[in-house]
Amino acid sequence: MTTRREQTSNESRELILAAAAELFAEKGYRQTTFVDVAERSGISRGSIPWHFGSKEGLLLAVLERSVAMVRDSLAEKPGEEASLEQLSRGAGMMFALPTTKLFVTLLVEAQEPDSPIRGRYVEIHNTLREHCRRWLERLPLPQGLSAEALAVTIIGAGIGVHQQWLLAPERVDPEQALAALRALVAGILPAGEGAASHGE
Amino acid sequence: MTTRREQTSNESRELILAAAAELFAEKGYRQTTFVDVAERSGISRGSIPWHFGSKEGLLLAVLERSVAMVRDSLAEKPGEEASLEQLSRGAGMMFALPTTKLFVTLLVEAQEPDSPIRGRYVEIHNTLREHCRRWLERLPLPQGLSAEALAVTIIGAGIGVHQQWLLAPERVDPEQALAALRALVAGILPAGEGAASHGE
Repeated sequence: MTTRREQTSNESRELILAAAAELFAEKGYRQTTFVDVAERSGISRGSIPWHFGSKEGLLLAVLERSVAMVRDSLAEKPGEEASLEQLSRGAGMMFALPTTKLFVTLLVEAQEPDSPIRGRYVEIHNTLREHCRRWLERLPLPQGLSAEALAVTIIGAGIGVHQQWLLAPERVDPEQALAALRALVAGILPAGEGAASHGE
Repeated sequence: MTTRREQTSNESRELILAAAAELFAEKGYRQTTFVDVAERSGISRGSIPWHFGSKEGLLLAVLERSVAMVRDSLAEKPGEEASLEQLSRGAGMMFALPTTKLFVTLLVEAQEPDSPIRGRYVEIHNTLREHCRRWLERLPLPQGLSAEALAVTIIGAGIGVHQQWLLAPERVDPEQALAALRALVAGILPAGEGAASHGE
């Protein structure tokens, strides 16, 4: 059973994480202070290190939380088969998450070989690729095309469309691009599975 | 006519740019000093600001040079039609360019709304999308699928595959992923243009 005190503590933790995710995405990791997080979350500044130790600890917890959010959004509901629609809904949701901008903002720090963030990035990419691969393995793929390689390409398209859109939102329409991705995937499947039509 | 002095000056400029591109990619922009660039290029430290003004000026020139390299690599040779093969060769070459890692390293700084680098990124993405779009416009695309949207997706896949590979080279095979991208594009084209076979 969860005590009242534990419940309050979990709520504070969640409020801090949500505020930090927004601030890191808006201002960047380095520019964000514990005071900013306290103001945004309504939780006292002193209790942030109590929950997360350091600012890096807070960052890791924010990334952990978004890995969990991505994983939850991809989890199959009972009776619901993984489908092109579901995958595409997942991709659409990613564009709306405040932490998605954070992923781009922190990409540089993740590049450092011994960065603690690097592991989280690899984990997020792995989770996405794994989900996509499992879905692809159930489909009748053309010969010579592995679900593994295709998963890297499809997840890559999601990442790359997002980055073009972040840099030039007035030139890039992510919904149209995701629709094009769906059409590309449908195009390699037999007609019954939703292959593209050439105007016949 | 180019004088001897101008020729030497152009050579020095090119040596400095090549060295800076390597160093920015290896060590990052902030960690690289004029002294590093002088050592790597063999050009005296004092002449670097003479050529480029500031370190930011050097960075902009490095990005300018890589935009030009990408553009050259995409230019159609006389008599050579834009093709899936050519596009794929272009994508493969990008993985080998030292400046490609630089693009990722500098992505954070490009995110700042008033960053001078942001414009270069948008320019590079535009150049790639434009090239891809012009090529796609000549192909018999399925109804309802615009060359514009498809170009965002295809260039996005190139960017996103690259980033997954930079973070986890032991898990991601970029050549296989680019082959999968070729198969996806072939899949939406009529059979004569190289549609995927389902084992017939």
